[in-house]
Amino acid sequence: MSAGTGLARTPEPPYYAVIFTSLRNRSDPEGYAAMAQRMLDLGSRYDGFLGIESVRGADGVGITVSYWRDEAAILAWRSDPAHRQAQRGGHETWYDRFEMRVARVERAYGFARDGDR
Amino acid sequence: MSAGTGLARTPEPPYYAVIFTSLRNRSDPEGYAAMAQRMLDLGSRYDGFLGIESVRGADGVGITVSYWRDEAAILAWRSDPAHRQAQRGGHETWYDRFEMRVARVERAYGFARDGDR
Repeated sequence: MSAGTGLARTPEPPYYAVIFTSLRNRSDPEGYAAMAQRMLDLGSRYDGFLGIESVRGADGVGITVSYWRDEAAILAWRSDPAHRQAQRGGHETWYDRFEMRVARVERAYGFARDGDR
Repeated sequence: MSAGTGLARTPEPPYYAVIFTSLRNRSDPEGYAAMAQRMLDLGSRYDGFLGIESVRGADGVGITVSYWRDEAAILAWRSDPAHRQAQRGGHETWYDRFEMRVARVERAYGFARDGDR
């Protein structure tokens, strides 16, 4: 996913997190950027989507965490036809390695210097 | 945390993830870098530590996910005196905002182009 998501404002736990950690290769940067933006646009309109945080470093390692109301919302988004096509592109072209972990958020704590979380 | 952690090699779920998302300000880069490296060194020696993934983008947003065997290991590391001092520095100096979420990883899936996860 592209940078610039900022920090997500999520409700009180429990909810779910999909932690997607990846190592990009150098192939097809334009195609990848277009796909990442499209997935951000599409996924965030799914019922049960709560927020997303995404960062990629100069070394090609990226972490994207998306937050969801429940497992059913995650499974619905996973089966989206455009998302499945993007998953195939990840295997075939864009990623040298990735790990996807689905986790249930049990507690959370936040801080904001200006008091506005 | 500094970049360069790569992707963590974690065991089969269940285990725990601490998702720490932060917005750095521009103050004290040397002190922050030294603290981040020290926390990486100290935390990874704790019993129950399974791995860490950390990325910070050019916009100051960073995501660090550390993986732990169980909640007890997370609580032990949280109470470490040097870690508590670092937490104070985060509030007082280094971060404009952060969110910390503790989650139970329930399932995971990985991919490596060369087959070596």
